[in-house]
Amino acid sequence: MLRFAMLGAGRIAGAHARSFTANPDAELRWVADPVPGAAERIAGPAGARATLDARQAIEADDVDAVLVCSPTPTHVDMILAAVEAGKAVLCEKPIDLSMSRVDELLTALDGREARVMMGFNRRFDPSFADIHARVTAGEVGSVEQVVIVSRDPAAPPREYVASSGGIFRDMTIHDFDMVRFFLPEIVEVSASGQNVIEPFIAEAGDFDGAVTTLRAANGAVATIINSRRCTFGYDQRLEVFGSLGMLQAANVLPNSVRSFGTDHAEKTAPYPNFFLERYVDAYAGELAAFIEAVRTGGPLSPSLEDGRQALVLAEAAEKAARSGRTVTLPAPTTVK
Amino acid sequence: MLRFAMLGAGRIAGAHARSFTANPDAELRWVADPVPGAAERIAGPAGARATLDARQAIEADDVDAVLVCSPTPTHVDMILAAVEAGKAVLCEKPIDLSMSRVDELLTALDGREARVMMGFNRRFDPSFADIHARVTAGEVGSVEQVVIVSRDPAAPPREYVASSGGIFRDMTIHDFDMVRFFLPEIVEVSASGQNVIEPFIAEAGDFDGAVTTLRAANGAVATIINSRRCTFGYDQRLEVFGSLGMLQAANVLPNSVRSFGTDHAEKTAPYPNFFLERYVDAYAGELAAFIEAVRTGGPLSPSLEDGRQALVLAEAAEKAARSGRTVTLPAPTTVK
Amino acid sequence: MLRFAMLGAGRIAGAHARSFTANPDAELRWVADPVPGAAERIAGPAGARATLDARQAIEADDVDAVLVCSPTPTHVDMILAAVEAGKAVLCEKPIDLSMSRVDELLTALDGREARVMMGFNRRFDPSFADIHARVTAGEVGSVEQVVIVSRDPAAPPREYVASSGGIFRDMTIHDFDMVRFFLPEIVEVSASGQNVIEPFIAEAGDFDGAVTTLRAANGAVATIINSRRCTFGYDQRLEVFGSLGMLQAANVLPNSVRSFGTDHAEKTAPYPNFFLERYVDAYAGELAAFIEAVRTGGPLSPSLEDGRQALVLAEAAEKAARSGRTVTLPAPTTVK
Amino acid sequence: MLRFAMLGAGRIAGAHARSFTANPDAELRWVADPVPGAAERIAGPAGARATLDARQAIEADDVDAVLVCSPTPTHVDMILAAVEAGKAVLCEKPIDLSMSRVDELLTALDGREARVMMGFNRRFDPSFADIHARVTAGEVGSVEQVVIVSRDPAAPPREYVASSGGIFRDMTIHDFDMVRFFLPEIVEVSASGQNVIEPFIAEAGDFDGAVTTLRAANGAVATIINSRRCTFGYDQRLEVFGSLGMLQAANVLPNSVRSFGTDHAEKTAPYPNFFLERYVDAYAGELAAFIEAVRTGGPLSPSLEDGRQALVLAEAAEKAARSGRTVTLPAPTTVK
Repeated sequence: MLRFAMLGAGRIAGAHARSFTANPDAELRWVADPVPGAAERIAGPAGARATLDARQAIEADDVDAVLVCSPTPTHVDMILAAVEAGKAVLCEKPIDLSMSRVDELLTALDGREARVMMGFNRRFDPSFADIHARVTAGEVGSVEQVVIVSRDPAAPPREYVASSGGIFRDMTIHDFDMVRFFLPEIVEVSASGQNVIEPFIAEAGDFDGAVTTLRAANGAVATIINSRRCTFGYDQRLEVFGSLGMLQAANVLPNSVRSFGTDHAEKTAPYPNFFLERYVDAYAGELAAFIEAVRTGGPLSPSLEDGRQALVLAEAAEKAARSGRTVTLPAPTTVK
Repeated sequence: MLRFAMLGAGRIAGAHARSFTANPDAELRWVADPVPGAAERIAGPAGARATLDARQAIEADDVDAVLVCSPTPTHVDMILAAVEAGKAVLCEKPIDLSMSRVDELLTALDGREARVMMGFNRRFDPSFADIHARVTAGEVGSVEQVVIVSRDPAAPPREYVASSGGIFRDMTIHDFDMVRFFLPEIVEVSASGQNVIEPFIAEAGDFDGAVTTLRAANGAVATIINSRRCTFGYDQRLEVFGSLGMLQAANVLPNSVRSFGTDHAEKTAPYPNFFLERYVDAYAGELAAFIEAVRTGGPLSPSLEDGRQALVLAEAAEKAARSGRTVTLPAPTTVK
Repeated sequence: MLRFAMLGAGRIAGAHARSFTANPDAELRWVADPVPGAAERIAGPAGARATLDARQAIEADDVDAVLVCSPTPTHVDMILAAVEAGKAVLCEKPIDLSMSRVDELLTALDGREARVMMGFNRRFDPSFADIHARVTAGEVGSVEQVVIVSRDPAAPPREYVASSGGIFRDMTIHDFDMVRFFLPEIVEVSASGQNVIEPFIAEAGDFDGAVTTLRAANGAVATIINSRRCTFGYDQRLEVFGSLGMLQAANVLPNSVRSFGTDHAEKTAPYPNFFLERYVDAYAGELAAFIEAVRTGGPLSPSLEDGRQALVLAEAAEKAARSGRTVTLPAPTTVK
Repeated sequence: MLRFAMLGAGRIAGAHARSFTANPDAELRWVADPVPGAAERIAGPAGARATLDARQAIEADDVDAVLVCSPTPTHVDMILAAVEAGKAVLCEKPIDLSMSRVDELLTALDGREARVMMGFNRRFDPSFADIHARVTAGEVGSVEQVVIVSRDPAAPPREYVASSGGIFRDMTIHDFDMVRFFLPEIVEVSASGQNVIEPFIAEAGDFDGAVTTLRAANGAVATIINSRRCTFGYDQRLEVFGSLGMLQAANVLPNSVRSFGTDHAEKTAPYPNFFLERYVDAYAGELAAFIEAVRTGGPLSPSLEDGRQALVLAEAAEKAARSGRTVTLPAPTTVK
């Protein structure tokens, strides 16, 4: 039984709370959030203790592991504090919006990076994980093309956009990690940003859609198609094409019902609304993998370096989108 | 090049006319219909000669084969006349509504039945034919269950119903043949008729829906689900389940487009409206198979006996539906 | 929070145990099983107490509700004991294999039947429940045809068959309830039994496949297609066809992955192996619905009478299969 | 009835020959090919005359229209000769591999470009055409993203590659036209070429895969994913995503059969082998549209300018792929 402190009690914390309920090997002991009353809303039903003070939760004797789902700017400090306190860490993406702060964290961790796992939950989606296992087993031969469609249902609010770090660091970063799940060594990035949805996003200097192309060291090319708005739900698809065949993850439907009428056949309900619904199994799988790795001393994966590499790709994509030039990555992006 | 006379110039004749256009091995030389002007409508565009007199067409020197698509009560006479004239015959189903007339025909043909092929076009549908070939090759092992869904888009007009011979002889007869395509020896028939659509059908003493269950000599059971109305088009599906697996023919869509919007995903257009659209390839395949068999002297299949057996099953189903008892077939229904 | 005693610790109990883990409103307090050690295997991880004595669990002060998943012959006694002890009951199907024992139970309950809910879990499958809600709302108009395909992955062992009560009472009973979910008033039943899979099933006087046809008071006809063996998994499908359209529940796949290679496209994994995997959400939904109804004093549904009616249909189907005659139900089968 | 001369008797001519057979409004009168015997193979079955001399066919009195399917380097001369002879022209893509020759042609035509239609057959594919009609009608709102997957089944032979003009002019050119079908004004092009399949393609200085991104004047972005090898057939898909929803053309299957067995469910046959099978309806539709436009005096579309614009995009994509820079198109690419 692994005992957890959860830092942050927002939307993503709610998703994790559901995983705790269903996981017999995890126990949520503490929830910390500086907003009065926030921690209680999650701690109460879970039978955990609530606090305003993250450090109290991190350092509690009955805590083995820390789940960081506080706002991005706090991640670096929380990770460091938790590792200093001897706790294993599962941290939501991204590590930070600033590469220099990420590098400072790595310096400060000084060899203890292996205590930290990044919350790239999609690696644990049952369909994506199945594709990964089968690709690794050679089912499609050598990977030549990866295509990701990743569209949010609706644009985030103006304030969110302002502090998000931009579409590539905030939204595409999950897709960058998914590309690296299949093609860890990316050597070139190009990107086309779009402003077709919300004027306030353009005004904030951000894009509301993007197509990003990444070339791997082995010549494979990955394409990521993003939009901040999608009327039919959260559009999340993946295809991995190789010399021997292709594996494709269709989007997930809320049930298996199809309707038929005078003007249509085989109609389904729209796709799940957003990540909380779409990736509920992925969050559960991520928690289980973290627990298993901590238990067995196995490597925590995706690693902090995976988190850093996703950020490297986000920076490169932004630069490419703004310059109209392919960005060549300065050094191998392989995991150290 | 096989030269044809077509008897009858109605709806089904139009379907065949399209097959002639596309088939380089067939030539339509004569079209006969007693309704003034009817034959011309098909003969004209096809460059064929029109006549009011079926016998003129049948006996023409430049005719090798006769395609009978005149009204059902004329079939027996037309078949006999064509065979007497030394022509090969492709006749629309059913042979006749009366079993005694069918038996009279067989007596009169006196061994020349092999000159006649029955127009059970669905055997030539690309999907059903593919399933048949694969089942024959053993892909699903021994056949245990056959399920056919066969729904017409809309009830036929009152006058049609009156002279149709009833749902089993008129509509289900195609499905009976499809069952026999996979399970030629049927030993028992039960059926549940329905009257849920059009009062005038009940008033005519006919059913507007039916579920028929047929047991084969080897223990397999086939189920046919019929309805005279289907809002989403012509619902034509087949599944053949066996000891090793299953082959399933989904319905055919007009194109491969799916639409996505706020209240739906993966929506297709309705199914093809009716048999002329749905079975266009089946009609073409049927004509090609007939020509090939005539050319090579191969057996004409489905045979006249297949036509008789389908009628045997239709009679049994009607009896079963009216009595609430399973009808055991008096004699083996295998092809003579 | 509803506190439960679970009677029986076999396979189906394991399925329910998972629902308890995930349901924050339910607490498993006792598990009873006469086989030494059996109850502990479920009670232990759940933090519940184990006992060999069902009555101890039923009568415990800290138990509000009893979940009966002991062998079928014990159901009647357990239901009665639990109701006598003032507890709400959720009982696995069937009530009993003997109609006279069911009637004795009803007499003994003497008006307290409303304290009992039958475990027809499939009513709570997300897809079937969605179809039911939409049919009830009128989306397909008046229901005319219901088609259920329900195939087990593999034949049960010889001993199981011997005490199962036969395919109709053991397996089809779930499908009978599903038919009644849409068409509560069944007036006629016909059935064709098959023996094509395992000789020992025929030797035991049972069938290993069946097609059952049921006519409702409103003229609708339902068809149930059963097999005790299915190489591609647990084949569970439903379609409800009406005057305005159709709703169809496709089978459930383990994930959304499709593979493509030299000899195939769009290939999925086989269907879920069996009911524990296929209906995991249905079991969870059933428990939640039971808790909600107990809490609010709402009706427990499906009711004991629903359980009795499913048994009536099973008896009728068996009689029809053995006699080759349609069985007319002697009295309205509506819920009392 | 429009009377045709067909120039060239190769593979693509065979595809068109089938359209002539099925089209009652077209008559193939002449087939010209400089290879002795080649023209006869198509002319014979079609009842047309064969010649080695293209000009004889072009200038024949019984010819109204010329179908140019001779090798690319001859297109310009053939178009010019046919227009000079007063004939309408349907010309296979591309006009020429050299933009300067294209411009010379336009100069020589001197206002008679409207007599020429380009053979971008995919615009007439039933699914793509349906999507276009619905997008034009506003069904998806304003178009924001177009995604095309277009993969050939196998790399062409070495000699073909040498004279093909490169992947962008030879293969992607169809996709460029499809992008322009939805987004006629392209303002920027980027591309990533790949060499992962056949070393001889790299040696020839060509790519064997590519991802191309195109930005339209309205901010929409289109992505084209190409590969010269695809084990599961000819992979041809399209999706058009807009502010209100999405329309998607799935690939086409040879029939509607799905198979189920111990290790799989819902498996289909591979996709059609190549363009002759996949686009058979598109070729027929193209011919019909050409005939209709000639008959009614309506505009021939896609136009010669559409052919030129596709070539502009091919040149831009090649430049972008080789430079790693986004290419801004110098002038509006709208149809003159």
